Amino acid sequence: MTKTAGCCQGCLHYVFDYETPKTLVIPSIRVGFVFRFTQFLVVLYVVGYVCVVQKAYQETDSVLSTVTTKVKGFAFTNTSDADPRFWDVADYVVPPQVSNIRFVFTANTHKLNLPNPSTSCVDDCDCIEGYSDPRGNGILTGLCENYSTTVKTCEVISWCPLEIDTKLPEHALLAAAENFTVLIKNSITYPKFNVHRRNILPHINSSYLKRCEFNRTTDPDCPIFRLKHIVSEAGEEFQDMAVKGGILGIIIDWSCDLDWWARKCNPQYSFRRLDNKNPANNVAPGFNFRFAKYYKTPDGEETRTLIKAYGIRFDVVVHGTAGKFGIVPTVVNLGAALTFLSLVPVVADWVMLTCMGKRDLYKKHKITHLNEVADTETVISFLLQMNIFPKYRFSASLISNDRPENVLFVDP
Amino acid sequence: MTKTAGCCQGCLHYVFDYETPKTLVIPSIRVGFVFRFTQFLVVLYVVGYVCVVQKAYQETDSVLSTVTTKVKGFAFTNTSDADPRFWDVADYVVPPQVSNIRFVFTANTHKLNLPNPSTSCVDDCDCIEGYSDPRGNGILTGLCENYSTTVKTCEVISWCPLEIDTKLPEHALLAAAENFTVLIKNSITYPKFNVHRRNILPHINSSYLKRCEFNRTTDPDCPIFRLKHIVSEAGEEFQDMAVKGGILGIIIDWSCDLDWWARKCNPQYSFRRLDNKNPANNVAPGFNFRFAKYYKTPDGEETRTLIKAYGIRFDVVVHGTAGKFGIVPTVVNLGAALTFLSLVPVVADWVMLTCMGKRDLYKKHKITHLNEVADTETVISFLLQMNIFPKYRFSASLISNDRPENVLFVDP
Amino acid sequence: MTKTAGCCQGCLHYVFDYETPKTLVIPSIRVGFVFRFTQFLVVLYVVGYVCVVQKAYQETDSVLSTVTTKVKGFAFTNTSDADPRFWDVADYVVPPQVSNIRFVFTANTHKLNLPNPSTSCVDDCDCIEGYSDPRGNGILTGLCENYSTTVKTCEVISWCPLEIDTKLPEHALLAAAENFTVLIKNSITYPKFNVHRRNILPHINSSYLKRCEFNRTTDPDCPIFRLKHIVSEAGEEFQDMAVKGGILGIIIDWSCDLDWWARKCNPQYSFRRLDNKNPANNVAPGFNFRFAKYYKTPDGEETRTLIKAYGIRFDVVVHGTAGKFGIVPTVVNLGAALTFLSLVPVVADWVMLTCMGKRDLYKKHKITHLNEVADTETVISFLLQMNIFPKYRFSASLISNDRPENVLFVDP
Repeated sequence: MTKTAGCCQGCLHYVFDYETPKTLVIPSIRVGFVFRFTQFLVVLYVVGYVCVVQKAYQETDSVLSTVTTKVKGFAFTNTSDADPRFWDVADYVVPPQVSNIRFVFTANTHKLNLPNPSTSCVDDCDCIEGYSDPRGNGILTGLCENYSTTVKTCEVISWCPLEIDTKLPEHALLAAAENFTVLIKNSITYPKFNVHRRNILPHINSSYLKRCEFNRTTDPDCPIFRLKHIVSEAGEEFQDMAVKGGILGIIIDWSCDLDWWARKCNPQYSFRRLDNKNPANNVAPGFNFRFAKYYKTPDGEETRTLIKAYGIRFDVVVHGTAGKFGIVPTVVNLGAALTFLSLVPVVADWVMLTCMGKRDLYKKHKITHLNEVADTETVISFLLQMNIFPKYRFSASLISNDRPENVLFVDP
Repeated sequence: MTKTAGCCQGCLHYVFDYETPKTLVIPSIRVGFVFRFTQFLVVLYVVGYVCVVQKAYQETDSVLSTVTTKVKGFAFTNTSDADPRFWDVADYVVPPQVSNIRFVFTANTHKLNLPNPSTSCVDDCDCIEGYSDPRGNGILTGLCENYSTTVKTCEVISWCPLEIDTKLPEHALLAAAENFTVLIKNSITYPKFNVHRRNILPHINSSYLKRCEFNRTTDPDCPIFRLKHIVSEAGEEFQDMAVKGGILGIIIDWSCDLDWWARKCNPQYSFRRLDNKNPANNVAPGFNFRFAKYYKTPDGEETRTLIKAYGIRFDVVVHGTAGKFGIVPTVVNLGAALTFLSLVPVVADWVMLTCMGKRDLYKKHKITHLNEVADTETVISFLLQMNIFPKYRFSASLISNDRPENVLFVDP
Repeated sequence: MTKTAGCCQGCLHYVFDYETPKTLVIPSIRVGFVFRFTQFLVVLYVVGYVCVVQKAYQETDSVLSTVTTKVKGFAFTNTSDADPRFWDVADYVVPPQVSNIRFVFTANTHKLNLPNPSTSCVDDCDCIEGYSDPRGNGILTGLCENYSTTVKTCEVISWCPLEIDTKLPEHALLAAAENFTVLIKNSITYPKFNVHRRNILPHINSSYLKRCEFNRTTDPDCPIFRLKHIVSEAGEEFQDMAVKGGILGIIIDWSCDLDWWARKCNPQYSFRRLDNKNPANNVAPGFNFRFAKYYKTPDGEETRTLIKAYGIRFDVVVHGTAGKFGIVPTVVNLGAALTFLSLVPVVADWVMLTCMGKRDLYKKHKITHLNEVADTETVISFLLQMNIFPKYRFSASLISNDRPENVLFVDP
């Protein structure tokens, strides 16, 4: 029983005995200053940089967004190569459905029937039947026909007339497009924080929306953009861009700080050309595509009008990150900071033991060198104590001396 | 040679001498308890919150997804302002191609020819030729024509008849659309973990898919949704929404825990209206767009049917984060936790040196105050020792003294 | 005044006194080795794994991208169930607008008029008027008509002729599609680092782009892909896939290391089939959709050509993460590492105090056990000092003794 009690007490000691390092207090203003200053630097970094600048105490989420756009505007075209025509949104916006990609086409190509050098030939042998070059005009029939009195070309199966897209239109068909406006409705979500926002801010009312137009300085919150304005903000010239076509990014930045003391979560608009203007390494410069309208002639035969549309595509690119105070990132960053705080003494010790004048004194008291000699010394000191004790005993015996007049401090 | 040996031994000592703090064991149950309890709290936080709740030991990746949808359903319309017509998917789904945005249009507007107040005029001077208000009806010809006996309006170039979209249809054209079903096929990828999933789960077979319909309670895994059900889950009324149109988000949450002990990675469906119902700050409420079908009359003239489609757009929004055990985040969080563990002694020391009864005793043994006095004292003690030694010698001689009356302390 | 001075000095001491642990140096090569080796392991992990492998010192950003694609190629079809026809991009690419989803349709279904078993009936009672099964053929009129001499079916309102999609085409209509090429232009942005890249790399020139074709070994940077090649790289057979249709992912990985010493940021192309081939749990296998072309007959009646297009959809999936040196992640990971370094002494101490031969000696010098006995001892030593002092005083008095022979150390 005493055994168990002892063991129990032992483990009790094992668990609850508190082991704390012995410390030495050094009243040196200089060492103390080095210590406090290094601490101060670390704290400064943590508070100033990690918290204020980087907001590392926040956990983040990235944005989910849906976009709808609505283009408005009219144009009337009357060019040599096309009939006079009135255009409204249903005509020039492809595709009709509302998505985050709008296309406003601004130019058509002339369709002429010129020989394609790649298909020029001398006789039928040059034309492999059924062969089709994906970059060519059609499927070779195998015949080499007179194209003109001078040139012979391989006959191809294709829609007639052949379309030649080497010659670019010298001007944009829908020059008026620069005054078209596009309304962008963007609703975003930060699923982790269950936050929903719209780019039509609460303080905006319908009457304002009916007349406003985006302007970075005067109307930064108006979601209605004039095409010309967008293009010029992207550093491009609308008419130039309209001829060859291009892709223009309407970038909406939804970076949010959702902490209650910040609460700012508004969209920032910016505009940038996304396609490559550089002609050096570029295939199919600008931006264009072909689409066809199909008709049936009264006698049931199918015909089509092929339109090669050069235009400006507007991509609405929505991005952003929301940050909100989170325990885990806070703890992690605080932990890292504390670790560096725990390094400060190392620095201070180093300074103390190398740069200070009294370093030897400090070293003597701080560091004990354990070695065999030390051990013997301790042994010796033990023995000395053994020697000293008799002396005490002696004086004691002295005190118990039989001759009272010899007693200490007695005055007869 | 001995020199090098010495130096070598020196650096050997420098490298391999192990410096360990001297410690003091305090057998105080209370201090020990404080120490252990604080430790326990930290460990509890780490295990309980960081690991179990936040799964901070995981590295994460965000989802890549592709979606295909397929709408099914029929409708027959017989309204005053349109011919009787049968509608199937090819008719009411715009655009045809399968993407993650489906549009089912449900209402057309009447097309009447009413004057637009903005264009009412008194004489030609009020109509600037060629001017076009993007929000108007067309391009002014510059003439002010009698619109009715009372009203004069500016003549505009435009498609005829003029479309007036101020008057909303009082009922949805395709009321039957509420019974249409949409099949959503969604395949996702977590590239970092090379994980691929589909929303048609392995345990689902074709026969089930042929007859099932999504229901949160009975068929939570069926990827076929009835439009009416979706809208009602989003807290809207289908018929109301169908008239003005709107955007409905089908949100698929693919949050996954890929650790072998968890292995759960199933889609969660939720539905939410994404556009702004609030009429207060809203332009073009609901959701609609115009598109045209083009025809050629037998005499080759192009005509079109303009359709202003009010409808419900379904956006399939896929989001999610996958987590899997990662060494780096684990180490980082463990490190942070350990840092806090290393703070526990600070707490315990503070308690020990301030709140305990024996604090002075503890302080005396734990902390050594190094100061000039202490130094001098040590010096003094050295000197004393010098003094003391003769005394010892003397007393020794004394002991061997033969003349007792000459013994010290005797006064004759 | 002295008071304030004293207090001031006190707080000065409080702030600037530096408390450093007393340490014990143990010249044991084995303990030292254990210590250094454990340190080495931790450093190895940090440098090797965290920095080199995981690049945990980087802050990351995910990619924003826009894609344009351009398909080229021709086909000529002459099948029993369709008129001879020539196809170019405007015909087989749906939708026309350029987005990151291209659809090339490759097969049409036959349209026959077969009874749908679900609608077979005995008499009118079996046919509920107005009822429409979303998965059926149309809206029931309520009449049960002779479909053939043997079978009676419910009459339905629908477009004529009825389309039956149970019978799949036995061969792809546009077999030639396998030789079509698609040009992918992809421009990405890492907003956080303000980095913009294009998949047409600077060293590529136009002439190369005009003739090149993607090949993983010879032309890894050419953005022009031959459909057949894509499909085969995805481990599929084009002709098989073309019949039933399918979705093919063109995955572009833009993982970038933006640190100045790395500077690598090129796209990596890979291809994978995204839809589910597995017939077991699959509804509407492959990939297809219906779209219609609308015509008006000379007498103004609207007709349509319904096309059920089986085809291969190409989804361009762009993903990637850019990493760049960041102070916060560096500090966090360094902090975690240092924490583990601060654990090393614990290990070394444990080894020292349990496995070493001289553990008792080490323990004796390292750890002081504070207990009551120790306290009493200290008390005793105090008392002894009290005893010793009079002796000193005495000897002092002795020295001032007038009897020289009684002076210490004098032998008469």
